Amino acid sequence: MNYKIGLIHGDGIGPEIVNEAQKVLDAVCAKYGHSFEYSRLLLGGASIDTTGYPLTDETIAEAKTCDAVLMGSIGGDAKTSPWYQLEPSRRPEAGLLGIRKALNLFANLRPAYLYNELKAACPLRDEIIGDQGFDMIIVRELTGGLYFGERETGMVDGVETARDSLSYNENEIRRIAKRAFDIAMKRRKKVTEVDKANVLDSSRLWRKITAEVAKEYPEVEYENMLVDNCAMQLVRDPKQFDVILTENMFGDILSDEASMVTGSIGMLSSASLNETSFGLYEPSHGSAPDIAGKNIANPIATILSAAMMLRYSLNLDKEADVVEKAVEEVLAQGYRTGDIYSEGTTKVSTTEMGDQIVKIL
Amino acid sequence: MNYKIGLIHGDGIGPEIVNEAQKVLDAVCAKYGHSFEYSRLLLGGASIDTTGYPLTDETIAEAKTCDAVLMGSIGGDAKTSPWYQLEPSRRPEAGLLGIRKALNLFANLRPAYLYNELKAACPLRDEIIGDQGFDMIIVRELTGGLYFGERETGMVDGVETARDSLSYNENEIRRIAKRAFDIAMKRRKKVTEVDKANVLDSSRLWRKITAEVAKEYPEVEYENMLVDNCAMQLVRDPKQFDVILTENMFGDILSDEASMVTGSIGMLSSASLNETSFGLYEPSHGSAPDIAGKNIANPIATILSAAMMLRYSLNLDKEADVVEKAVEEVLAQGYRTGDIYSEGTTKVSTTEMGDQIVKIL
Ligand SMILES: CC(C)[C@H](C(=O)O)[C@@H](O)C(=O)O
Ligand SMILES: CC(C)[C@H](C(=O)O)[C@@H](O)C(=O)O
Repeated sequence: MNYKIGLIHGDGIGPEIVNEAQKVLDAVCAKYGHSFEYSRLLLGGASIDTTGYPLTDETIAEAKTCDAVLMGSIGGDAKTSPWYQLEPSRRPEAGLLGIRKALNLFANLRPAYLYNELKAACPLRDEIIGDQGFDMIIVRELTGGLYFGERETGMVDGVETARDSLSYNENEIRRIAKRAFDIAMKRRKKVTEVDKANVLDSSRLWRKITAEVAKEYPEVEYENMLVDNCAMQLVRDPKQFDVILTENMFGDILSDEASMVTGSIGMLSSASLNETSFGLYEPSHGSAPDIAGKNIANPIATILSAAMMLRYSLNLDKEADVVEKAVEEVLAQGYRTGDIYSEGTTKVSTTEMGDQIVKIL
Repeated sequence: MNYKIGLIHGDGIGPEIVNEAQKVLDAVCAKYGHSFEYSRLLLGGASIDTTGYPLTDETIAEAKTCDAVLMGSIGGDAKTSPWYQLEPSRRPEAGLLGIRKALNLFANLRPAYLYNELKAACPLRDEIIGDQGFDMIIVRELTGGLYFGERETGMVDGVETARDSLSYNENEIRRIAKRAFDIAMKRRKKVTEVDKANVLDSSRLWRKITAEVAKEYPEVEYENMLVDNCAMQLVRDPKQFDVILTENMFGDILSDEASMVTGSIGMLSSASLNETSFGLYEPSHGSAPDIAGKNIANPIATILSAAMMLRYSLNLDKEADVVEKAVEEVLAQGYRTGDIYSEGTTKVSTTEMGDQIVKIL
């Protein structure tokens, strides 16, 4: 089959890790007789450097002609990069938020699991990890809430004031809840809806609507958890979670906490999907400007994001399986980039890691 | 000296742990020749049971006649307690939010540190804990932000919608920032301001105002951190933090995460202060309805909250030191309630723990 794939190389280590993922995709192409046409898209810092803006109409229009988009990482070091001298709407992150909204990517899926091979990197004690390890996915609403609410700044009675707003309607909640329950049906059939319903009206609407959706999935265990408690439980006993369903800001915080709890943030992929099969795929980690250009970044999260893309947007399940298995195999063979290196394993560069994975495919 | 202390026994394990703290206060009284007059105040579930409301004008008025208030814990089990059939503004937590606002308790201090004696209970690996352990304090703004913003629920174009708002002005930020820097001056002189300034206008105001305050404290190292990153760093390397300064909702999430990271949530106190020396003191943990009435709850967090009260509101530093030392000593002697019990230590009940601490005073 023929597919058109948008590539956003991005900033920092972005270009290096996207190159490795493309290498893997090309190998999949060759092996299974597909044809991938790539289109380079500008976003974030790279787009500011070329066009002056973090996101342009051209990028949006071109992305819409693609079956899916694979991205590296966006943004630089706020302390040193010239981008952070610009006003907020002109900074790299504004491009990321802009493309999520423009393409209606409301469903952000962030798997967080422990690699058996990398247990030692997990910051939690072995007793907490247990024999089975843990494996959850955070389903985060991505186009609503505080990120996209009305804002106001200015003087109120001579005092500088700023206001953001957190708003959700039942349709926004229902569609993301359905995604979470659909995903749970293919996993361990448990959804934990996380909110702050003892304080927020928007959270009470989340509880009400997600409870309605839960009724349509009688096989799925449904529970509610307060966000402060969830932040504790992720450290105390991450095994209890299967699917965590939550709004945009809580999802931002909890998904980062969950990835750190695995100890392997360089290994975790993510997908941001709209109502169709279209999606934007990117590693869970950031652009790591401090190690950019050194050929030492871990490309696995991006390669696994490419696998998610094969599965969710291109409907190439078998090919996705093969990539995921190759990553497991390369770890079993002992290859490690610096971030996951431990004694007795073989340290490899970004490009060597890509090569090893391609070799196994 | 004579002092008047409000006691809110509260719900769940609240009455049991407040009794132990009162026992300790009485012993301090006797030993140092003070006189404490106690006034029982109703709040939360206990207040609903008696008056129908989680907070009454009587409670507020009486609290204002006290030098400080010591509290157990508020609220029940949302799944089984009849309180949770009531509308949100009539539930126990509404009383807690109400008293914070009514008494202007804008500065919430939540210490989170690792007890040397309880290292094994810490969910993090020994390599992360290090030899020194960690010791931070979260300074959370408590009377602004999403907790107290305008809300709106209703139909918008036939679709059920709910909106909360997150608003701060420069004065609210400045006064809590000053508290944080004053505290840092007495500690390791580092303040980490946590926000989401790449997305929120209110966070950008936090950065601006806290940076201004930082200039008044040239000896204190000041840094900014995004909330999602902070949620990761608390797990990855809690040693890096001294004082964490943040807004209400982020503080709620991060302080609970930080307490769980210590592994000893039954040991952590908190203070909520206004502009004067008045404060409300309470354990960081909740009301644990599942173990209420069994005389097994850990009273140490409440006893240490009483020590904070001696220090911050009554200006009795020496007495506070003595209570804190007694807690350390009782741990060194091997006494443990069930939540912190480990092999080789002596398991004691709630009241026995109180007695042992009194014995040492
Ligand atoms: C860069 C930032 C705006 C973004 C977010 O907050 O959504 C990032 O943290 C993420 O989680 O993808
Ligand atoms: C009970 C709840 C309203 C409260 C809060 O969110 O502030 C609690 O979690 C706390 O941190 O004291």
